[in-house]
Amino acid sequence: MFPPLPTELLQLLLKSEIAIGDFAIDATAGNGHDTVFLAQAVGENGKVLAIDIQKQAIDSTTARLENAGLRDRVHLHHGCHSELAKIAGEQRPRAIVFNLGYLPGGDHNLITQTEKTLKAISAAWEILISGGLLAVVCYPGHDGGGDEAAAVEFLITSFADHHTARYGMLYNEKPAPFLLLSRKLG
Amino acid sequence: MFPPLPTELLQLLLKSEIAIGDFAIDATAGNGHDTVFLAQAVGENGKVLAIDIQKQAIDSTTARLENAGLRDRVHLHHGCHSELAKIAGEQRPRAIVFNLGYLPGGDHNLITQTEKTLKAISAAWEILISGGLLAVVCYPGHDGGGDEAAAVEFLITSFADHHTARYGMLYNEKPAPFLLLSRKLG
Repeated sequence: MFPPLPTELLQLLLKSEIAIGDFAIDATAGNGHDTVFLAQAVGENGKVLAIDIQKQAIDSTTARLENAGLRDRVHLHHGCHSELAKIAGEQRPRAIVFNLGYLPGGDHNLITQTEKTLKAISAAWEILISGGLLAVVCYPGHDGGGDEAAAVEFLITSFADHHTARYGMLYNEKPAPFLLLSRKLG
Repeated sequence: MFPPLPTELLQLLLKSEIAIGDFAIDATAGNGHDTVFLAQAVGENGKVLAIDIQKQAIDSTTARLENAGLRDRVHLHHGCHSELAKIAGEQRPRAIVFNLGYLPGGDHNLITQTEKTLKAISAAWEILISGGLLAVVCYPGHDGGGDEAAAVEFLITSFADHHTARYGMLYNEKPAPFLLLSRKLG
């Protein structure tokens, strides 16, 4: 699709940055699309940690990984992504992906909570390797999504030594989803 | 580079959209980087029209094309891009690229003029084939570039049947260059 959707651009650009054997984190597993993408990108010797607070998302991601024959590369964690540094342990990831908002097909009242999102993104930035990549898809058109999106953009651009781009569709009526892409330079 | 610069993303995304044998227009030839890119993308049977109002840009683009062995595929026109519909004649392009601002290495007082830029972009949209692509790199950090960038963004999102994305770096201090990418749906 041209121009690509933010989620499409995310995969297009990350694909050539993640190397075989890498460790990557999907901080919002959701229906598992990005988890499967990351599991493919890290290859047979790589590892992915996928986190979601909803049991339905963990189940859906598990099924998608099993269908793709990629279940072995992924550690699934049912819990809050604000704990991601603890969950990741000693391993430092090359890439961390967040896709905010609600679970597609799930309960739209269960959305990411701004305070926990900010805590999770700060922790993600801390544990990334130098040169590592952070990608966040924000949904300012959703209820509560506008404040969350603005807070996330403010947080990321306040990090030291970041190189960040923003990509989003331009709709005429309502705020459109956008993608923040950052490289940690320090 | 991750994340890519706007000019890098432009080429990355256009590459797979332009087919062998296509007709494409570089409405601001400048130093010829995009002209060479387009001439490669359209292949041996394709054609490119490259326009610039500065003789220095036409010379620089000519030299770059000759070095790349691509001179034969390109019609160079020394004149104002606001006339591009007339210059293109009957041919309808699949893609049109604008890179606004001043000529790198040239006189920084010679910048694209907003009124002429808007006229050129409107004409470009008119002559694009259905499904065709418009890409505009804007420089809001340059003198006069902020107003021009805002006017271009407003114009493009006012077109009927456009599908548009915006990509830009997030700097902390000053407005950063950004790319507008549109597909003409109608």
